[in-house]
This record gives sequence, structure tokens and C-alpha cells, in this order.
Amino acid sequence: MRKIITIGREFGSGGRELGARLAHALNVAYYDEEIVKAIAQRSELAESYVNQVLEKRIRAYYPITIANTLNMNQGDAVYAVTRSIYAAQAEILREMAEKSDCVIVGRCADYILADYRPIRIFVYADMEARMERCRLRQKAENGEVLSDRALERRIREVDRARAQYYRFYTGQIWADRSNYDLCVNTTSIPVEKLAELIAAFASVEPPEGLLKD
Amino acid sequence: MRKIITIGREFGSGGRELGARLAHALNVAYYDEEIVKAIAQRSELAESYVNQVLEKRIRAYYPITIANTLNMNQGDAVYAVTRSIYAAQAEILREMAEKSDCVIVGRCADYILADYRPIRIFVYADMEARMERCRLRQKAENGEVLSDRALERRIREVDRARAQYYRFYTGQIWADRSNYDLCVNTTSIPVEKLAELIAAFASVEPPEGLLKD
Repeated sequence: MRKIITIGREFGSGGRELGARLAHALNVAYYDEEIVKAIAQRSELAESYVNQVLEKRIRAYYPITIANTLNMNQGDAVYAVTRSIYAAQAEILREMAEKSDCVIVGRCADYILADYRPIRIFVYADMEARMERCRLRQKAENGEVLSDRALERRIREVDRARAQYYRFYTGQIWADRSNYDLCVNTTSIPVEKLAELIAAFASVEPPEGLLKD
Repeated sequence: MRKIITIGREFGSGGRELGARLAHALNVAYYDEEIVKAIAQRSELAESYVNQVLEKRIRAYYPITIANTLNMNQGDAVYAVTRSIYAAQAEILREMAEKSDCVIVGRCADYILADYRPIRIFVYADMEARMERCRLRQKAENGEVLSDRALERRIREVDRARAQYYRFYTGQIWADRSNYDLCVNTTSIPVEKLAELIAAFASVEPPEGLLKD
């Protein structure tokens, strides 16, 4: 049986790092940018645009040219393009899950791949720890330094967008524990260590029925 | 440094079993009935009454005699007795945590023992799995068999009481992930196996700062 692991995460909690480390520890594929590339190819949209639709607010971005081309009003065009990108993503996730064991971060993969009975993980952390992680990342990437207030606002905005996207696509509440097998707080345990422990968790076969013991 | 583990749990999710197994795996004390006994001794109330106050709806039970003795109205008497039992429990939990490493299930221990930086675990499961666990337990204990509907109602009632108690005592939301280090869903992984994995988790030293890596 395929071993699929999906990771939902709060922004700045280290979910992406956990996913990559977990894939490494389990020696399975880690899909991330490949998914965006494949959607872009299939839909003939630019990668940057696909990313916008997938990662930012779902209704805030759309190419005006598409509305004109299709002779739709803007609202309908946004909806149509958004849906087609989601559909392409779902198709691609299923193909990847079919191809090999893998770890997938975000993308409603827990919902899309439900038939594969993935191990569904949610990663979160205290706001202070998330801010600290973001600061380190910002410094490493581009040296940009936001004020604490602006950083906290940004973190909340990204999470709101994720919640909105998840709700739109799955009809479920984002971060609701009932949609996950394991929720881990990275505030007080290194992500590296967590990856080892979850790798052990992932190697446990689920019981046949609902309860074994 | 003391290793204290606190376990919050949905009714029927196997939290108590997990606590006992975890204590066994880590070779630390598991406190449960001892706490009620100690409170009863200290407060000169019957164990059964202490249990009622601690486990059932916080405002629904009180000995009418106390109100008469203290010349208080009933509402004030309920409040006074409830508070005194909570205070005794908090004192006893701190003494136990001071005495040795331990696992404590329920009792707002995550909040009361916050200074000890416990590993705070929350255990939950799908309703169907919880009902199945309750049925097995009922059969084993007294042969009582509730209808599915009555059983589900009972499970929700107990959780509501726990949420109310937790809120009353801590001012926090029960089962809110931010109050826990790890939330585990026992629906699809045997509690026995979970105990081993969490024992490994518990043996990781927390980083000095908020983030190590």
C-alpha cells in the first residue's frame, strides 16, 4: 500500500521544512515546485500566476484577458480559472500519489488524496516562535526586516488565505484537528527531531478496523 | 529537570489508556485515583462528592448542608466548595509534580503545572471510533449497552462538561491546539503504538530558546 503523507501548516511553523526532512528520513518523494510547474504546463498559464491563485487570496487575482477572451464577466472568469487550476492540481496530485510514496505540503492534499488514506499532519506553533522563524528566513533570503507588528499581520493574513482556500476547496474547516492524524507544535521541539519521530509514526501500519486494542 | 506529561482528552478517545501506557513506557508515576483520595482527605469531603465536582458539570452538584452551615446562599456555597476543591487539587498536583516525574490525565494539569513546562498532549478520535471504544468498555465493565444515539449524546455531554470545567478553571478554550505540544488522533493508530512513539517524543530535550534550528 502507498505511503502518502500530507502536511497542513500554519505560516512560519516550519511545516515545509518538516515535510522535506520527513521525505528525506523516509526516503520518499517530496513534491512542491514540481506541482506548480506541472499545472502551469497543463493549463498554459504562467507559473507565477498559478502560484498566485494557489497561495494567495483565492478571489483577488485573475488575468483580465481571460474574462475578455471568454466573454464572461470578471466574477465568473475568476471562478472558472480558479476551478480549472484546482482541478489540474487535484489531477496532478493523484498522478503523483499513484506514481510513488511521497510527502506533500499544503494544497488540500489531505482532502484530494483521501482515497489513499494518507497520514495527515498539521504543524503549528506559538506566534512568537513563528515570528522568529520568519525573521530568520527573511534575513537569509533577502535581508528584508519587517516590524514585529507588520510581521504578525502578514502571518495572520497568510493563514487567513490558507483557511479560505481550504474552506473553498474542501468545504471543511482548515486546521480542525478532526481532519488530521497528528498535530504537532514546533514551538518547543526542533523540526529535525520531529521529523525523526514522525518518520517512526509513519512506519506504523494502521489497524484493519477502527480500533485494534 | 522534572519530566511531567499532561494529557487532555476527548471522552472515549483512549487518553486514559494512553496515559497509563506512557507512564509504564517511561517508567514514571501515573497519578489518577490518588489525586481524588488526597483531595477528599484534605477537604474532609467524600471521594464520591469530590469526583462529582471534578468530573461532572461544575455547577450541578453541591451538598446542601454546606450552604446551611455557612449561612450562604446556595450559589455562593457551590462556588466556594468548587473553588476549594480546585485549590486542593492544584496544590496536590504541584506536590506530586515536585515529588517525581509523572503522567497526569485531565484535571487542567497542563495549566496548573505550567511552571514545570510539561509535555502537553491532547488525545482525540473520530466519533465512530470513540463510540466503539465506549461500547467495548461498557461491555467489559458492566454489560450496559446504550443505543448509538444515547451513547453519542453521552460522549458529547462529557466533553461539554470537560470544556466547561477547563474554561472555568483556566480561562482558556479546551482542546485548543495552542495549549498543547502534540495532538494525536487515535482513530487509526493503536494506543499501544502511540504510547511508544510519544515516549520517544518525551525523551527529546526542548531547545533552550524558542527555536534551535
